[in-house]
Amino acid sequence: MDPQEDPEIEARFLSDWSGLSVGRPREVHRPRSTEEVAALVRRCHEEGLCITVQGGMTGVAGGAVPAQGDVVINLERMNAIEEIDALEGVMQVQAGATLQQVQEAAEAAGWMFAVDLGARGSCQVGGNAATNAGGIRVIRYGTMRDSVLGVEAVLANGQVVSSLTRLVKNSTGLEPRFLFIGTEGTLGIITRLTLRLHPPMGQAAVAWVAASRFEALPVLLRQLKKKLGSGLCAFEFMSGQYVRTACELTGATVPVQTEGAWHVLIEAAGAAGQCLDEPLQEALMHALEGGDIDDCAMAASQAHRESFWRIREAIPEVLTHLKPPATLDIGLPWARTAEYVQKVAAELQARLPQAQHLFLGHLGDNNLHLISGPLDEAGVHAVDEIAYGALRGCGGTVSAEHGVGRLKKDYLAVSRTPEEIALMRTLKQALDPAGILNPGRIID
Amino acid sequence: MDPQEDPEIEARFLSDWSGLSVGRPREVHRPRSTEEVAALVRRCHEEGLCITVQGGMTGVAGGAVPAQGDVVINLERMNAIEEIDALEGVMQVQAGATLQQVQEAAEAAGWMFAVDLGARGSCQVGGNAATNAGGIRVIRYGTMRDSVLGVEAVLANGQVVSSLTRLVKNSTGLEPRFLFIGTEGTLGIITRLTLRLHPPMGQAAVAWVAASRFEALPVLLRQLKKKLGSGLCAFEFMSGQYVRTACELTGATVPVQTEGAWHVLIEAAGAAGQCLDEPLQEALMHALEGGDIDDCAMAASQAHRESFWRIREAIPEVLTHLKPPATLDIGLPWARTAEYVQKVAAELQARLPQAQHLFLGHLGDNNLHLISGPLDEAGVHAVDEIAYGALRGCGGTVSAEHGVGRLKKDYLAVSRTPEEIALMRTLKQALDPAGILNPGRIID
Ligand SMILES: Cc1cc2nc3c(=O)[nH]c(=O)nc-3n(C[C@H](O)[C@H](O)[C@H](O)COP(=O)(O)OP(=O)(O)OC[C@H]3O[C@@H](n4cnc5c(N)ncnc54)[C@H](O)[C@@H]3O)c2cc1C
Ligand SMILES: Cc1cc2nc3c(=O)[nH]c(=O)nc-3n(C[C@H](O)[C@H](O)[C@H](O)COP(=O)(O)OP(=O)(O)OC[C@H]3O[C@@H](n4cnc5c(N)ncnc54)[C@H](O)[C@@H]3O)c2cc1C
Repeated sequence: MDPQEDPEIEARFLSDWSGLSVGRPREVHRPRSTEEVAALVRRCHEEGLCITVQGGMTGVAGGAVPAQGDVVINLERMNAIEEIDALEGVMQVQAGATLQQVQEAAEAAGWMFAVDLGARGSCQVGGNAATNAGGIRVIRYGTMRDSVLGVEAVLANGQVVSSLTRLVKNSTGLEPRFLFIGTEGTLGIITRLTLRLHPPMGQAAVAWVAASRFEALPVLLRQLKKKLGSGLCAFEFMSGQYVRTACELTGATVPVQTEGAWHVLIEAAGAAGQCLDEPLQEALMHALEGGDIDDCAMAASQAHRESFWRIREAIPEVLTHLKPPATLDIGLPWARTAEYVQKVAAELQARLPQAQHLFLGHLGDNNLHLISGPLDEAGVHAVDEIAYGALRGCGGTVSAEHGVGRLKKDYLAVSRTPEEIALMRTLKQALDPAGILNPGRIID
Repeated sequence: MDPQEDPEIEARFLSDWSGLSVGRPREVHRPRSTEEVAALVRRCHEEGLCITVQGGMTGVAGGAVPAQGDVVINLERMNAIEEIDALEGVMQVQAGATLQQVQEAAEAAGWMFAVDLGARGSCQVGGNAATNAGGIRVIRYGTMRDSVLGVEAVLANGQVVSSLTRLVKNSTGLEPRFLFIGTEGTLGIITRLTLRLHPPMGQAAVAWVAASRFEALPVLLRQLKKKLGSGLCAFEFMSGQYVRTACELTGATVPVQTEGAWHVLIEAAGAAGQCLDEPLQEALMHALEGGDIDDCAMAASQAHRESFWRIREAIPEVLTHLKPPATLDIGLPWARTAEYVQKVAAELQARLPQAQHLFLGHLGDNNLHLISGPLDEAGVHAVDEIAYGALRGCGGTVSAEHGVGRLKKDYLAVSRTPEEIALMRTLKQALDPAGILNPGRIID
C-alpha cells in the first residue's frame, strides 16, 4: 500500500534537485484520481494540516521539499494520457504524466509538444506548469503559459475547479489556468491539463558563432529574428570560459577556430520538409561581413548538430566539476544584458577569485544562467547577493524559469514591485486563507 | 474643461457599437495620467460610487455602456506611446493609445504589432486587452494574452499595481497581467501596457478555396498547418450564402467558378523576403487531387489579394443589409464545428425562415461567427437561444473574442463550469468587495 503514515518514508520524497532538505512529512500519499486528491485536501483543510505538492522532484528551487509534519501529495500515479484529438492537435492528460510521456504521445499522433528540457524523463507536466517551465525553444513556442490551454485544479478547501477548455481563444472572463501556471502549487493542485500541440518541425539548421563583444549578440539576434521570423528556434549564448570548460569535460571540440569571448549556438527550423540552412547562412555571412561577429560554422550533418548541442548541454558535467556550485537563472532585457554581465563578472572575479564564474543562457527569452563554483555556503550567498543585487532597477527577474520556491523568496522583491507582492498575498488569502497549500514558497 | 458633472454629457459616452443604452452617468472624466485615474477611483471607493471604464467604445457586448448615475472613466486622453525598445521589439504605452497608433509606432521602429482588427482606428489597446481581442492573425500570433507582456492597473480601492515587466519569461509567481486581460475592466483599470512586437511579415500568399462539405475544412487546415507551420496566418471560412451576399453588396466577384457550399480565404506569410506561394499552392493541389476541396485560386497580384480580402471584410455592409441583425462570435473545437453548423443552420431556418443566417469565422482559432437578420427583438433572442443552446456540452464558448459584457451574461454558464464562475466571484470579491468597478458585466 501507500507509504501513508509509514515511518520509513523513502528518501526520494524528502528532497528535490536542489538538494535542500527541510523536515520529515507525517504522511506521503500518491493518489490515482482527482477525487482522491480532493478528499485528501478536504481532510487537511478540516484538520489544519499543511500540504506539500510533489511532481517529478526535478525542481531546483526547493518547492517540492516537504517541511516537518507536512502531508505530501505526490502526483506520480496520476500519469494517464487521457485523450488526443489528432485532428486539431489537442491533448488531455493527468498532471503526473512525465514531459517525455506527453512528447511521445504527441509524436505518435503526428504532432509535437513544444516545451522541452533536460529533465524530460522525470519532470511532470503538472510540475512544468506549476513552475511555468520554458526550455530550449521558447523563442519560437513560448513557455508552459503558451502550451497549456486548460487545467483542472483542486483548491485549498478541496473544491475541484474544472477549467479544461481546449480553445485557442476564449473571451469570457478570467482564465483560471493563469492562477495555477507559475504559482508553484500555492493556489491549487493541478490534476489535469489540456495541452496545445504543434505540427512537427522540419530538420533544423544549426550554426555556431564566435564574437568578441557581448553587445554584438542582441544585434545579431535581432537580425536573425527579422530574417528568419518564427523559424528561429534557439539562440544560446555561452561565455568562452564555459565553452572551454565544457569541451574539456566532454572531450568535444569548439566548432570554430576563434577563441571568442562569447559563443552562440543557433538553431532554425521551419515546417516539416522545409530547410532554413540557406537563410541562416546568409544572415551569418552578413553579420560576418559587417564585423558584428568574428567567426561562424554551420553544422553539416546530424553528427555535427549533435556535437554542437553537446557543448551547450554539458551543464550537468560542469555542475559536477564545480561542485558545490551556485546556479542562477535570472532574466533581463537584451539592452541591459551586456552591461550586467560585465559588471557582475568583474565583481564575482574580485570577491570570489578562487571560483569559476560561467555565463550562458537563452538570450531570446531574456534568460541568463550563471554557474559559479566550487563555493562554500558563504560563497553561494555572496553570488546571490552580487547577481541579484545588480539586477535591481534593470527590469529583470531572479527567476526566468526555475521558480522561486523556498530558495529565492528573499529576493522576490528584486523581480516584483511591492504592489505585485501585495496582490499575490490578496489572492493567496482569498484562495487559501489558512495557508495550507505549499506554505513557505514564493511569498510567505 | 472636462465634461465632468456636465448636464450635457455627449451621446458618445452613453453607448458603444452594440447600440445598447442603459442610463445617464453622473460624471464623465477623461484623465490624463495614472495618478488622476487613481484619485478618481479612490473617491468613488470612498463615496461608494460605481465606475464604468471606457476605451474606444467599439465593444459589441455593451461592456463600456454606463448605468444611471455611474462615474465614467474614459481613457481617450491617455494615449502616449511612452517608449520603444527598437533593439528587442518592446513598447510601453498608455492604455488609451489606439490600436492603429500602436501599429504605426511599431512599424516606424522596424517592428510589427501583431493584433489587428477592423476597428483599429478607434479601439484602444487597453480595451483590446480588457476584452482579449484577437483579430485576423491569431493562428500565427495569438490574442492580446500573447502580445501583452506587462500592465499597470488601478484596483477598485485606487491602488496602482505596476507590473510593467517586459520579459518573455518570468517564473516568480502569479503574473498580474492575466487578472486584467479578458476581464473587461471588472478587476482593475488598465492604465499602461508593455507590448511585445514581432518582426514584420513578408509578402503574403493568398488563396481562395471552395468545398462542398464542411468536414473538409478542418482536414485542410490540419494539412496546411503541417505544411506551412507558423507560416499559416489566416484560415477564414465563409458559407456560400455569406459570399454571395457580400459579393452582391460590394460588387466583388467570387474568385472561383465553383458554387461551393463553403469558401475559405487562406493567407500564408513568412519572414520579410520569404515567399510561401509555392508551398501553399502545393498543399492546395494536393487537397484538390485528394478530392477534399472542389476548387481553388491563388491571388496573383496585390489587387487580387485585396479583392479576396474585400469579400471577407464586407461584414459591416452585410450587417447594415441585414439590420437589425444578431451577431454571435462563438468558439468550439474543430471536430464539433461541422455538426454544430449543420444543426444550428437547420434550426434557424425552421424557426426564423424570413431571415438570412450567415456563418463565417476564424476556424484556426476555434472561432465561428453567425450573422442573422433582419430580426426583431424576439428573433435576436431566438437566435441566442438556438445558437448558445446547441453549444452546451460541446466544450465551446459563447464569446471567442467580443467579450461577455452586459449582453452575454445570461449565457456565461454555457462557456464556464459552476466552479469557474465561483472562482471568478471569489476573485471579484477579493479585489472589489464593494463591486464598484464595471458592475453588471460578466458575472454580476
Ligand atoms: C536537468 C534539468 C534541466 C532543466 N532545464 C530547464 C530548462 O531548460 N528550462 C526550464 O524552464 N526549466 C528547466 N529546468 C527546471 C524545470 O522546469 C523544473 O525542474 C520542472 O518544470 C519541475 O517539474 P517537476 O514535475 O519535477 O516538479 P517538482 O520539482 O516536483 O515541483 C516543482 C514545484 O511545482 C509544484 N508542483 C509540482 N507538481 C504540481 C502540481 N501538479 N500542481 C501544483 N503544483 C505542483 C511543487 O510543489 C513545487 O513547488 C530543468 C531542471 C533540471 C533538473
Ligand atoms: C468593426 C469591428 C471589428 C472587430 N473585429 C474583431 C476581430 O476581428 N477580433 C476581435 O477579437 N475583436 C473584434 N472586434 C471587437 C474588438 O475586440 C473590441 O471592440 C475592442 O477590443 C474593444 O476595444 P475598445 O477600446 O473599443 O473598448 P470598449 O468598447 O471601450 O470597452 C470594452 C470593454 O473593456 C473595458 N475597458 C476598456 N478600456 C479599458 C481599460 N483601459 N481598462 C479596463 N477595462 C477597459 C470596458 O469597460 C468594456 O467592458 C471588432 C469590433 C468592431 C467594432
